[in-house]
Amino acid sequence: MDLSSAECEDFFRNTAVPEHFAETSSDISQFVTKHNEVGRKIVLVTSGGTTVPLESRTVRYIDNFSVGTRGSVSAEEFLKRGYAVIFLHRLRSLEPFSRHLGNVIDMFTITPDGQVSVKSEYTCVVASCVTQYESVKKNGTLLRVTFTSVHEYLHLLRVCSQCLQVMGSKVMLYLAAAVSDFHIPASQMPEHKIQSSDGDLTLTLQLVPKMLKPLVKNWLPQAFIVSFKLETDSHLLIEKSRKALLAYKHQLVVANLLDKRKTEVVLVTMTTEQPIVLLPDEQAAGKEIEEKIVCELTKYHSEFCENSV
Amino acid sequence: MDLSSAECEDFFRNTAVPEHFAETSSDISQFVTKHNEVGRKIVLVTSGGTTVPLESRTVRYIDNFSVGTRGSVSAEEFLKRGYAVIFLHRLRSLEPFSRHLGNVIDMFTITPDGQVSVKSEYTCVVASCVTQYESVKKNGTLLRVTFTSVHEYLHLLRVCSQCLQVMGSKVMLYLAAAVSDFHIPASQMPEHKIQSSDGDLTLTLQLVPKMLKPLVKNWLPQAFIVSFKLETDSHLLIEKSRKALLAYKHQLVVANLLDKRKTEVVLVTMTTEQPIVLLPDEQAAGKEIEEKIVCELTKYHSEFCENSV
Repeated sequence: MDLSSAECEDFFRNTAVPEHFAETSSDISQFVTKHNEVGRKIVLVTSGGTTVPLESRTVRYIDNFSVGTRGSVSAEEFLKRGYAVIFLHRLRSLEPFSRHLGNVIDMFTITPDGQVSVKSEYTCVVASCVTQYESVKKNGTLLRVTFTSVHEYLHLLRVCSQCLQVMGSKVMLYLAAAVSDFHIPASQMPEHKIQSSDGDLTLTLQLVPKMLKPLVKNWLPQAFIVSFKLETDSHLLIEKSRKALLAYKHQLVVANLLDKRKTEVVLVTMTTEQPIVLLPDEQAAGKEIEEKIVCELTKYHSEFCENSV
Repeated sequence: MDLSSAECEDFFRNTAVPEHFAETSSDISQFVTKHNEVGRKIVLVTSGGTTVPLESRTVRYIDNFSVGTRGSVSAEEFLKRGYAVIFLHRLRSLEPFSRHLGNVIDMFTITPDGQVSVKSEYTCVVASCVTQYESVKKNGTLLRVTFTSVHEYLHLLRVCSQCLQVMGSKVMLYLAAAVSDFHIPASQMPEHKIQSSDGDLTLTLQLVPKMLKPLVKNWLPQAFIVSFKLETDSHLLIEKSRKALLAYKHQLVVANLLDKRKTEVVLVTMTTEQPIVLLPDEQAAGKEIEEKIVCELTKYHSEFCENSV
């Protein structure tokens, strides 16, 4: 075991598993078995930001900016393309289908005879997403799993990976969650709320072990793995994506800048850079860039599966 | 001007005002004028947690645990009791009325003839909250104002207070938001995302100036002001509440422990401690502790108004 694998093992040993972990693990395992039996591809979509608790009875935490748009839209697109989806997402972040129903109380009205009804201007969007949602429920192609802290996220990522191992190359990991780079280890966390009467506050955070390394090497060596790079500085973006591919030996990085992430990304492999752009008229027509990203990725994945046989 | 007032002025000078600040200020001012003219009491309810950005183009931030339950339930209760409510809340936290509509996509169904309808088991709760919401909209008694960062929150708190000054004792401040004690001043914030390749991360946070002091002393000297104390350690709770009353000279602290906050609080004044408990059978019947808290506070406020004449 190399240094980084040892660090990861340490992390898991010193971090409590999430609540209901055995139940969740069993749900994941059954979901994988069911779809594997019928030869359906599975994608694990991670979505939303992870928190880093600053106290063990948590009042304060560090969070990453993400409402889960990229992950929830992408999950819908994978479902449309016939994938079964494990949607590992931050509690209360956006979810596929229900994300279309914004400030929902404004959608209802009370008819003169006292009945609840949906206002006519909303019936189309509601009908469309309820229809899709019910069909997905009927087919059992969506499994929703939630996390809050980075600790919970990593435990769940590992168990998902372990369950998905049997799938070989027919699984894609689409790691869109905004995962914290730093955390405070449980052993160094105060139990109670930090008191402001003590003056200024200095926090020392340690690096979260880079789990992508054991993930690619040990947990899912045959899978098609897509990671994301979000930066605010365009000069660093492609360089950092290539560095990640070199370090972790996975297949693809979706590179994006915070400001332009809804209209421009670059699909970066070791040998190619494919820009994906949402044009103004597509945007005006309500199209989302994730449709294009997922469409391209499913092609990469098909090719990957063919080459793996 | 004493030291703490100078600190507060510094804070505002060095912190950008929120987007659309002039518009929001004008909305608040009109709302106050309208209700003041008809002699209606106003309560400013603050709700949800504030963030502390760690970078100026924010990817990471510190957050406080709060989904806005206390504030949103309390706002409903104040509305029921005839108050006009300024609901100053964290963007995407719970809001009065709509908070009852949880995972809303499960409420809808498609009828055999292709129409959208609300499932029968949900019609009651939807009808009740839509009816209340529409009546509040018609009466114009609820003004929603949103914040994300602690900087935005404090700018908005100040402008609300300034607008509310004309109300004299007929205004209550119900400061239920979980406001950050620490922040990173704009001048010390890196522009770009902090890089994890630099190793462990040390953050030095400064105390946010205690705005309750200028609020009570200068902004709203005649108002009835209620602050909240949330602790995880029961030994500190009442002592810290009294200390706050002594330091800021406001009227009342609602003291609560993180674990028991949904069933037990103590209303602490300089001379009294009134425990409020939600009994198990009340809880089973769907009653919420905020109903009791708000009911008691409106009595304190009435008495306060009589004594102020």
